[in-house]
Amino acid sequence: MMSLNLDEHPHRRHNILTGEWVLVSPHRTKRPWQGKQEGTVSEERPKYDENCYLCPGNTRASGEVNPNYESTYSFTNDFSALLSDTPDDGYEDGLLRARNETGICKVVCFSPNHSLTLPLMKIEAIEKVIGLWQKEYTELGAMENINHVQIFENKGELMGCSNPHPHGQIWAQCSVPQEVEKKSRQQLHYWRKNGASLLQDYLIQEIHLNERIVAQNEDFLALVPFWAVWPYEVMIAPKKHYQNIEQLAKSERTGFAEIIKEVTIKYDNLFETPFPYSMGIHQAPTDGAGHEEWHFHMSFYPPLLRSATVRKFMVGYEMFANPQRDITVEQAAQTLRKLSNEHYSQKSD
Amino acid sequence: MMSLNLDEHPHRRHNILTGEWVLVSPHRTKRPWQGKQEGTVSEERPKYDENCYLCPGNTRASGEVNPNYESTYSFTNDFSALLSDTPDDGYEDGLLRARNETGICKVVCFSPNHSLTLPLMKIEAIEKVIGLWQKEYTELGAMENINHVQIFENKGELMGCSNPHPHGQIWAQCSVPQEVEKKSRQQLHYWRKNGASLLQDYLIQEIHLNERIVAQNEDFLALVPFWAVWPYEVMIAPKKHYQNIEQLAKSERTGFAEIIKEVTIKYDNLFETPFPYSMGIHQAPTDGAGHEEWHFHMSFYPPLLRSATVRKFMVGYEMFANPQRDITVEQAAQTLRKLSNEHYSQKSD
Ligand SMILES: O=P(O)(O)O[C@H]1O[C@H](CO)[C@@H](O)[C@H](O)[C@H]1O
Ligand SMILES: O=P(O)(O)O[C@H]1O[C@H](CO)[C@@H](O)[C@H](O)[C@H]1O
Repeated sequence: MMSLNLDEHPHRRHNILTGEWVLVSPHRTKRPWQGKQEGTVSEERPKYDENCYLCPGNTRASGEVNPNYESTYSFTNDFSALLSDTPDDGYEDGLLRARNETGICKVVCFSPNHSLTLPLMKIEAIEKVIGLWQKEYTELGAMENINHVQIFENKGELMGCSNPHPHGQIWAQCSVPQEVEKKSRQQLHYWRKNGASLLQDYLIQEIHLNERIVAQNEDFLALVPFWAVWPYEVMIAPKKHYQNIEQLAKSERTGFAEIIKEVTIKYDNLFETPFPYSMGIHQAPTDGAGHEEWHFHMSFYPPLLRSATVRKFMVGYEMFANPQRDITVEQAAQTLRKLSNEHYSQKSD
Repeated sequence: MMSLNLDEHPHRRHNILTGEWVLVSPHRTKRPWQGKQEGTVSEERPKYDENCYLCPGNTRASGEVNPNYESTYSFTNDFSALLSDTPDDGYEDGLLRARNETGICKVVCFSPNHSLTLPLMKIEAIEKVIGLWQKEYTELGAMENINHVQIFENKGELMGCSNPHPHGQIWAQCSVPQEVEKKSRQQLHYWRKNGASLLQDYLIQEIHLNERIVAQNEDFLALVPFWAVWPYEVMIAPKKHYQNIEQLAKSERTGFAEIIKEVTIKYDNLFETPFPYSMGIHQAPTDGAGHEEWHFHMSFYPPLLRSATVRKFMVGYEMFANPQRDITVEQAAQTLRKLSNEHYSQKSD
């Protein structure tokens, strides 16, 4: 019997964190491309833009004026998808079921400098962003009716980012979202069965195998997970078993900032373009349960596939059947690992 | 106590078919938009394009020559994501698990005319497409090792469609994909509990409520499902409890063609643009089990939100937490229902 070659044969891989599967078609990038090419992004942005609603001192749509902040700044989104005062009520009519949702949406400015992005920021500046994420997770999570805090960043027009000023968002809410529920379930199952952290055991295995690692330092590991869906998906996780970012010591915060900078520089260097992605931090829900099983991690889901202008589309088969990827995880990890840690534009700020 | 108003208050809705939830933020489209605008699509396309690998008589990348087909034509994809001869083997190493996948990918040309799309095709021509889908579902489904047949169409560059020639795809494979598994589970649970079809009972309720219906004829209903994720998502389902498209009688095939034409014309009329979408038909797996619980349906997932150039992005929160929509299902259904059934370009073929 011929044996399965993960570099060649179409196969499915199991995602230990969600319990789901991804279809991998290693041979698939060979097909011709007559489809959509994205425009390349011009990088010239001023340090201050008077029309940007996130720049210091500017007036937002709500009429509020941003302070002259010098590092980071967070505020409640003027167009929040979640509101804190919805009636505590449900709707049920035959097969139709709905439930009110309450929450708070915040915007987190990473820097006063309109022209920057995470890879171009200094380590100390990224540490301040992490510090703000910690503060928000703690404060929002402590609020009544906030059982989950989702920190994320959409970067680039391709990822629906409506303003290029370096910023992320936080959506904190009453119910625990679906993707997080899946990961809670899988981690809890493993924790109960093995008395160990699923993700920590996985990281130990990956360090041993040394095939999918992109970068690491004393406290953190960055890798393309075995079950990655997006072409150059990366996960950053702490080597210690921490439930949430709050638990990071000061020195670990530095390690976290360093590896974020390293990964995002590699991303920009890959196609010599500001690399679009959605980034999200998954950590323990703030619902009061202990959640010992949880091991926090930050994931990057970037759409670019072959160049700055050709992306992977998650459409058709992927929407109706199953996520599917065209290049192997191991190729992606190797490519990223080999890339320089110095930003191609070399302009550091 | 104030009661929940589904037109105003952020809430979650339950998807009876997948068991999942969608977050709805009815007030959200008011926010300003500084983000990506899609280019508008020029519609001028010749009836025959010598560079198109799907036009009759042309040579494909594989060297094969397309016949001079006069209605529809299907063939095995030259760049299939699935292959029929992978080694029947698994891979397991600690926490890493993979499994070979076998299958067949086909391309289905809807028409020899390069310039057409479904809404511009004659009813009889669409019937022939349905006839081919039936044939493929039956033949592929009868093959050993094919336990699921996914019929779909990606339309428009925005949906990763690499060739504008009117065509769809079929990916048939050994394992039953994730999205289908979810729907099997929910339908089976209901079937066992109530001795009735979940989707049929739902359609009956929707006909009674008459709030989310977009179009209907004797045999089919088109509606925006209560739990729709995409802004103008539509589901077409037969009123009779059919597990798969094979079971349609000849006259029902006509009704199916008519409602497909009606829905896709409304789509094009919405923003007076060829409306991009992914369409997929979910039906009973072909794994030999009876699957009495299954009620087949065709779904359209279109990304446009506010105009021909502003789309909804499923990024950030949506990727890491939960699908989220900005306009209510009821608004979307009403808008679509009111649109004309005559194509804005009036050029029928
Ligand atoms: O096969 P095509 O049209 O080249 O490719 C398109 O459809 C496929 C199936 O939905 C997707 O996997 C691809 O990402 C998409 O670009
Ligand atoms: O809030 P923004 O940046 O205007 O909007 C962006 O992020 C949101 C949260 O991921 C998404 O719901 C929107 O579709 C996207 O365009």
